[in-house]
Amino acid sequence: MSVANFATLKSVKRVQIQRFGADGGTCNDAVAMEEPLEIRLAWAQPDGRREQKSISITMRTPGNDEELAAGFLLTEGIIAGPAEIEAAGPCGPPAANGLINVVRVDLAPGVKVDLARLERHFYTSSSCGVCGKASLDAVAVQGRYDLRDNPLRISAENLGALPDRLRASQSVFERTGGLHASGLFDAAGQVQASREDVGRHNALDKLIGQALLAGELPMSGYGAVLSGRASFELMQKAMMAGIPLVAAVGAPSSLAVEFADEFGMTLAGFVTAGRFNVYSRPDRIA
Amino acid sequence: MSVANFATLKSVKRVQIQRFGADGGTCNDAVAMEEPLEIRLAWAQPDGRREQKSISITMRTPGNDEELAAGFLLTEGIIAGPAEIEAAGPCGPPAANGLINVVRVDLAPGVKVDLARLERHFYTSSSCGVCGKASLDAVAVQGRYDLRDNPLRISAENLGALPDRLRASQSVFERTGGLHASGLFDAAGQVQASREDVGRHNALDKLIGQALLAGELPMSGYGAVLSGRASFELMQKAMMAGIPLVAAVGAPSSLAVEFADEFGMTLAGFVTAGRFNVYSRPDRIA
Repeated sequence: MSVANFATLKSVKRVQIQRFGADGGTCNDAVAMEEPLEIRLAWAQPDGRREQKSISITMRTPGNDEELAAGFLLTEGIIAGPAEIEAAGPCGPPAANGLINVVRVDLAPGVKVDLARLERHFYTSSSCGVCGKASLDAVAVQGRYDLRDNPLRISAENLGALPDRLRASQSVFERTGGLHASGLFDAAGQVQASREDVGRHNALDKLIGQALLAGELPMSGYGAVLSGRASFELMQKAMMAGIPLVAAVGAPSSLAVEFADEFGMTLAGFVTAGRFNVYSRPDRIA
Repeated sequence: MSVANFATLKSVKRVQIQRFGADGGTCNDAVAMEEPLEIRLAWAQPDGRREQKSISITMRTPGNDEELAAGFLLTEGIIAGPAEIEAAGPCGPPAANGLINVVRVDLAPGVKVDLARLERHFYTSSSCGVCGKASLDAVAVQGRYDLRDNPLRISAENLGALPDRLRASQSVFERTGGLHASGLFDAAGQVQASREDVGRHNALDKLIGQALLAGELPMSGYGAVLSGRASFELMQKAMMAGIPLVAAVGAPSSLAVEFADEFGMTLAGFVTAGRFNVYSRPDRIA
């Protein structure tokens, strides 16, 4: 295998491959970049002393790292909004491959950090032990937006068109076939922003992080379209950003459906042109 | 939404959905179950006192929980083999939904537990900081099988047939379209075992865990076929179980390719009948 980075496209890497089949032979191909990203949190103690702590390492596709970090902090309940972030940016010297794989988020003065939250398990309650219902209850405690009366509406035709529109907005996927994507769409079904990543959680965190850093929270006038399946954690992220409608190209899990039901979110699955299933709150689809 | 469990099929849940499209209307459908699983480790201190610690909570599809726990412990480097497990089984009373979502693994007497390993970050080295190469180096330290000279061979025809054979072995996927699958195949391309889960890491951990509990480690005479993409972490799990060949239906990431290259593993992607790409060590494919 020989490898050369595109200088301009750090989300793609060239590799030499062996093709088997009708058009067999050796050739060059592009694969999606996957590299670790460390998210560091920095904040001031009441006595003015600054503290810093590594709170997460995730395997991600380089690019939009500040958005990923900001989105992660919001959707995991560590910060409540953009006012709590003073600065976010790459940190430290580049690694041997030229990438900076650490992003530091400086919290605004006075923001209290609940680090225990990061170590706590959110899936247990005294009433039910470890179970899906307890997981929902834990999110309800964190939840800051009531989505049940959210007035967003979209036509079935526009909703079915979302996967194609999301794909049209993707650049790296076309080259590599190797990335998940998340897109933000409005009531007219127009994709207003999209983000890609090898990890589907990261793609959604980047999408939410860009809105957060632009001061556009809550995202209550938008839906999210996901290139893959809908799980509990993806529904949690959407809810923490105030997104009332999730349209997934793939299948939803049982707990994603329970989540949507519990929090008044609309959840569509197997979305394709002219056909899809709605698992919760179909009244938002005309 | 109305929900009823299949008494016999805890990996599937019935939900009421609204279909949009030509065959629109309200109907019942099946979705893949997703519920948290807590993995607890129990062991004896040198003075005989027993300790117990929760080491992971993962969202998984119920079923084969002991395999999932055992596979996780092996592929994360916490145990070295089946002799280190004395017992593994469900723990505590069922949750309100009837499921037991805690599995306890009792380690054999004398096994030392390196709990710091669970909290340590494996992605940093002093030479390169946080980067993909450091991630590979960290795995190399843990690695217990040298796969470079592994003699497994498979024909291109049999390799291309794997996705169909994997699908034929899946039961829940057919019903829900919502699960990842991992399969173990031999040199003749026969799928010898397969496991499903909403999480692709979990599907592979279950597959490896069943071999571990059956005393069949290392799995050096077998390859693994994955229903989705190949990432760093999936390659790590295969390597920790001694599997020299990974065939993915989807795309590999850059770090999956680097991983395969570094450890002498064969990595095939976009595998379909009569056509696929090989990213590393094509000499194992005839």
